[in-house]
Amino acid sequence: MATDEVILLDFWPSPFGMRLRIGLAEKGVKYEYKEEDLRNKSPLLLQMNPVHKKIPVLIHNAKPVCESLVALQYIDEVWNNKSPLLPSDPYRRARARFWADFVDKKIYDIGRKTWATKGDEQEAAKKEFIECLKLLEKELGDEPYFRGDKFGYVDVVLIPFYVETSSVSEAHSMGKRCLQMESVSKSLPDGEKVYDFILQLKNRLGI
Amino acid sequence: MATDEVILLDFWPSPFGMRLRIGLAEKGVKYEYKEEDLRNKSPLLLQMNPVHKKIPVLIHNAKPVCESLVALQYIDEVWNNKSPLLPSDPYRRARARFWADFVDKKIYDIGRKTWATKGDEQEAAKKEFIECLKLLEKELGDEPYFRGDKFGYVDVVLIPFYVETSSVSEAHSMGKRCLQMESVSKSLPDGEKVYDFILQLKNRLGI
Repeated sequence: MATDEVILLDFWPSPFGMRLRIGLAEKGVKYEYKEEDLRNKSPLLLQMNPVHKKIPVLIHNAKPVCESLVALQYIDEVWNNKSPLLPSDPYRRARARFWADFVDKKIYDIGRKTWATKGDEQEAAKKEFIECLKLLEKELGDEPYFRGDKFGYVDVVLIPFYVETSSVSEAHSMGKRCLQMESVSKSLPDGEKVYDFILQLKNRLGI
Repeated sequence: MATDEVILLDFWPSPFGMRLRIGLAEKGVKYEYKEEDLRNKSPLLLQMNPVHKKIPVLIHNAKPVCESLVALQYIDEVWNNKSPLLPSDPYRRARARFWADFVDKKIYDIGRKTWATKGDEQEAAKKEFIECLKLLEKELGDEPYFRGDKFGYVDVVLIPFYVETSSVSEAHSMGKRCLQMESVSKSLPDGEKVYDFILQLKNRLGI
């Protein structure tokens, strides 16, 4: 793997980018981090992700992999000699993919509404968000991680949102456990810095 | 595989259900088809998919797999001795997953707007839909299928929408080629029947 060239186009507060930072850290892959200015996207980003024009983009030996869940599975399949993220059993893989999809479809959108809306809409979002966390908590059960005793795919997918939303999170013990891992703590920005960023964003959006 | 019990909870005009019908047909898996009344969902559906309460659900030896892309990958991994849907190379797998995700994020929603809206909104949706089809066509290139010379994952994911939207589709040759395959033609309902169903739905929705 010594000749691999790995570049990550990212934006520091992005929970989707954090997933890839954690995945690469878990696998021990060295990469060049390139911060994007999303209001003035680089020609490289537009060339590497012409369809969505979004970060994160993983560029492996000049070939782009876009969309964080796709790229995380790619990382797991290419660097398969260390820290497997998805289990090997097809049914357990399907369950992991189902919950990762759930996080993408529900947690991100509803989580955003808990701070980007006001009044009744915000209250409804908070209620729905807690219902979603309860479902995740039920899936977690008494295990330390979603994969059981090993940190895995669903943990990587979910934990970046923990930084953003820890004030309403109920899944404290799993979140805290993940944050103690070096691959996670070194890949995530400081919670207060993210909070400040969200405050600035709310200001800019006039919320 | 003789002792496998496979049940599909489905609703005949669902493009998501069609994906699993095609996938199971490609693999030669025998299964029990159970039609759901979506206005009066069965206790089995609510028990098997308590999170989303949606079809399709693949039930394999009493264990449910929900969400069509997750279930299609499950089918490909469990019945891996015949007609592989995803390629084996990680980069090509990532590309296939990217385009399947694109179909889910864009084609379904925008496709629906091409018939569920009116006036300017409908015109804008048609324009955007054609842009999306052009992107898909570019990815297809001069190949007969998205996987190259073999029918695969992206074809299975996309072809059910072809039945619905053939009037605005530009990817005619790929669509026609897929419809000639037995696994596809026997898994898809008649285009006119789907068209009638959409007309009834528009009526009910007051469009």
